[in-house]
Amino acid sequence: MPAPNSTFPDVIASGIQPSGALHLGNYFGALRQHIALGNDETRRDEAYYFIVNYHALTSVRDAEALKSYTFDVALDYLALGFDPNKANLFLQSDVPQVVELAWILLCLTPVSQLEKGVAFKDKVAQGMSSNSGLFTYPILQAADILIYGGTRVPVGADQKQNIEISRNLAQMFNRTFCEDDEPIFPIPEPLILEDVAVVPGTDGQKMSKSYGNTIGIFDEGNVLKKSVMSIVTDSTPLEEPKDPETDNAFALIKLFADDAKREEIASAYRAGGFGYGHAKKELLRMIDDYFAEARERRKNLAERPDYILDVLRQGGEAGLKKAEQLMQPVRERVGLLTTK
Amino acid sequence: MPAPNSTFPDVIASGIQPSGALHLGNYFGALRQHIALGNDETRRDEAYYFIVNYHALTSVRDAEALKSYTFDVALDYLALGFDPNKANLFLQSDVPQVVELAWILLCLTPVSQLEKGVAFKDKVAQGMSSNSGLFTYPILQAADILIYGGTRVPVGADQKQNIEISRNLAQMFNRTFCEDDEPIFPIPEPLILEDVAVVPGTDGQKMSKSYGNTIGIFDEGNVLKKSVMSIVTDSTPLEEPKDPETDNAFALIKLFADDAKREEIASAYRAGGFGYGHAKKELLRMIDDYFAEARERRKNLAERPDYILDVLRQGGEAGLKKAEQLMQPVRERVGLLTTK
Repeated sequence: MPAPNSTFPDVIASGIQPSGALHLGNYFGALRQHIALGNDETRRDEAYYFIVNYHALTSVRDAEALKSYTFDVALDYLALGFDPNKANLFLQSDVPQVVELAWILLCLTPVSQLEKGVAFKDKVAQGMSSNSGLFTYPILQAADILIYGGTRVPVGADQKQNIEISRNLAQMFNRTFCEDDEPIFPIPEPLILEDVAVVPGTDGQKMSKSYGNTIGIFDEGNVLKKSVMSIVTDSTPLEEPKDPETDNAFALIKLFADDAKREEIASAYRAGGFGYGHAKKELLRMIDDYFAEARERRKNLAERPDYILDVLRQGGEAGLKKAEQLMQPVRERVGLLTTK
Repeated sequence: MPAPNSTFPDVIASGIQPSGALHLGNYFGALRQHIALGNDETRRDEAYYFIVNYHALTSVRDAEALKSYTFDVALDYLALGFDPNKANLFLQSDVPQVVELAWILLCLTPVSQLEKGVAFKDKVAQGMSSNSGLFTYPILQAADILIYGGTRVPVGADQKQNIEISRNLAQMFNRTFCEDDEPIFPIPEPLILEDVAVVPGTDGQKMSKSYGNTIGIFDEGNVLKKSVMSIVTDSTPLEEPKDPETDNAFALIKLFADDAKREEIASAYRAGGFGYGHAKKELLRMIDDYFAEARERRKNLAERPDYILDVLRQGGEAGLKKAEQLMQPVRERVGLLTTK
């Protein structure tokens, strides 16, 4: 038997959460590698990046907020250098066939398997009632990957369970409805993002919106200054030597500085006479420089909402075309009669 | 506040199971009234009859069987007099938006509510593992009704729970996402079919495929004769008087005979000298006569599969158009950004 994926094009498929303003933790955690991967055409045949607004309905009840989060995450990706000529960026809801596929996959999934889902178990452990969208969303997430014939899915190491579900469903569908030598779905592999950094927030914990310790990528001026100046440091007086490796400001400086600059600042810490205020000013300048171009681009793009919608529409058309290629034989194999 | 449905057109929406050969129990139980209702344009503004092939995926794993059941039920409806110029007959899967709406409704439904579903509880009571399609299908069933703006749903008295779910979801959606005076969904009402008869099978139990006691609507010749002759009767000798009201053959005769004929045969039972064999022969002739035209029509239609598919396609286009009218404001209200 040939390796299952060898007959399929190499397709990267990846969902993007429309969850509001992006911060440094998102950027250095995954976003940077994510965008680089999308732009690097030499490493795959096709790439589909979709903003998962159907998923967001499991938790968001504010329609205007959801629409602006959805639009803004597209804006952010484009401002940060995502190249829509190299990979497709689009709305999950512009390919509604994905919910149709999810239904077909639900019919292959025992309820007992959904009960093992992490998000669902967390809710139940907190004594909360889960909605049925949250209960079934791992199946929609699997459909997201399978409908584009995804062979590789960029993920953090903590998201392997979800890829497992996609893999199992692809195998189960192929086994149930296809001849051995004519599988419809490739078996997706996780593509663990390299160099994933845990970025500390202003209080030293992992940077996360839920801790209120974030520094926004597109913040600037006084807002940015206030965040950076609020970084928690110890009370070593200015003139004394300091250990850079235990300082939160230095942990962030390391993400922006090249080797020479990092060494220079570390030496200043160790020498004494270089206070945390100096370090934060350096950091502030670095953040400003690092994102200057992206911020400029974001302002320009924000004035061209039609362009953003054009990009999404064109990406959606490519996604739709690919999805229909997969769905036609899927409908045929499961026995949905067609009249066209 | 105005009566909630007064601002909406009166729409009949009804699912048809593609579950194989129809029998007399189906016909006198609901099908006859169902078709009459579809044809009676004076009693509503619009009517949508859809063959629920997505639902069938919760139990059918044989693609060819599902396709032929789906096609055959359309053929049966048309042969039995369903008029596609008066009501829309189509495939559930030709309006895939229904699964999209089901997803949106799943996000409004606590898991605990699905756990109360009758079909799911039955499975669990039988010690069987339920698939997640079966678990969530009441929500797809609600979407089926709501997506056409259904105001009335023809049902047997035992199906009121499912209408309850549609009603609750329509109300919850309107309350969560709409202004008080601009609800999107009317609240569907059950339309309990009148004169629903319980039809005995050949063994005297309720006629049902699962009891193997059916007489097929489109059976004829020796197959039909064998079924009718196998009707269980008591052992009263031919010459003795008999009570028609306790006899299975007479129970079926009553469904076909007009008042005069029914009285004539009842008198013969009571007079003696009229055996069960005679009664069965009468019944056989009645069935043959009653369905003669429908059988002829079915044979002609079966030779024109393209016509059947045309009817379904045109019905599907009407269904799609209506569904899109509902789905555009639904997507807008829940916050799905659109690029078109």
